[in-house]
Amino acid sequence: MTPASLANLIESLRVLPGVGPKSAARMAYHLLQRDRQGAARLAAGLTAALERLKPCARCNNYSEVEVCDSCTDPRRDPRQLCVVEMPVDLNRMEETHAYKGLYFVLMGRLSPLDGVGPREIGLDRLIKRAQDGVTEEVILATNFTVEGEATAHYLGELLKAKGLKVSRMARGLPAGGELEHVDAMTVAQALLDRKTI
Amino acid sequence: MTPASLANLIESLRVLPGVGPKSAARMAYHLLQRDRQGAARLAAGLTAALERLKPCARCNNYSEVEVCDSCTDPRRDPRQLCVVEMPVDLNRMEETHAYKGLYFVLMGRLSPLDGVGPREIGLDRLIKRAQDGVTEEVILATNFTVEGEATAHYLGELLKAKGLKVSRMARGLPAGGELEHVDAMTVAQALLDRKTI
Repeated sequence: MTPASLANLIESLRVLPGVGPKSAARMAYHLLQRDRQGAARLAAGLTAALERLKPCARCNNYSEVEVCDSCTDPRRDPRQLCVVEMPVDLNRMEETHAYKGLYFVLMGRLSPLDGVGPREIGLDRLIKRAQDGVTEEVILATNFTVEGEATAHYLGELLKAKGLKVSRMARGLPAGGELEHVDAMTVAQALLDRKTI
Repeated sequence: MTPASLANLIESLRVLPGVGPKSAARMAYHLLQRDRQGAARLAAGLTAALERLKPCARCNNYSEVEVCDSCTDPRRDPRQLCVVEMPVDLNRMEETHAYKGLYFVLMGRLSPLDGVGPREIGLDRLIKRAQDGVTEEVILATNFTVEGEATAHYLGELLKAKGLKVSRMARGLPAGGELEHVDAMTVAQALLDRKTI
């Protein structure tokens, strides 16, 4: 009873993360019935993004130009290089207004179980990037998950072997965190890394 | 820090129902990083669906042809016409394998508060359709919500005035329903509509 192009639209909406058959059908009917203009915009948006976005040659983040605006911004300090897993992590760092150096986006993390090794996340490009003669410190800001920690450890060893100063984001209690409600591992780490005041 | 075509893709994903700024960003990065083929398929699927799907001239459901396969199926009984709100409702009716007549899809329901009156859901087309000289019974299968009930009532009056037999789906306890766990209104209705056995 479902025409081919409708069935195909429903099926193709399932490429979106977290969208199963029911949501996909709901989305398709919503677009067809209530927002055909929006659907056309979405089709055009997808096509344009696929065409225009390439990895920046320096930081590996998505960019429409060879080297992105952030990497060429003269107000940023080229002596610091912050390594993050994903563009969302970079955005979060920027929101803090606490960092003025440059970035490198891994677009992933080491995850041998998923077949993601050093080559898949372009670690060689990062090593090369960090040895530009200007970078003095590499700040590892991968997540504090098992994979993120492993990635930081692996990267740290490689970069230190090249004579670079390498640092890692601090672990500890979150701002506003109460000991009672923070997990034991975090409290233990905050104790280990306590600071003399 | 976000290139224009990426920001635009994220914004355009928000036309999907239930997708806010965070999900839209997650979807955009997922597509760009892990499923560019899927994203291209989605863009093509949207474009094709918008181009090809028109309302069927008889049942108002989405169709790629003037009159859809269901309406021209000689195995279906043209004496019965079942009125549903949306294509999903039609699909659910079909899943029962209990109905062999034809359909009319309102693509909505009367909802004066939302500015949806008889004209917006094309009731005149339904009235005309039901008076084809073959239809003997119109089965109202709009939902048992306030709007669905109002739509059924309104339609019933109009169709009866044209001399057509009009019926409404039965209300009562659901299959497997236990009195203890079914709402009081449903139990009351099941009592009122009780059947002599």
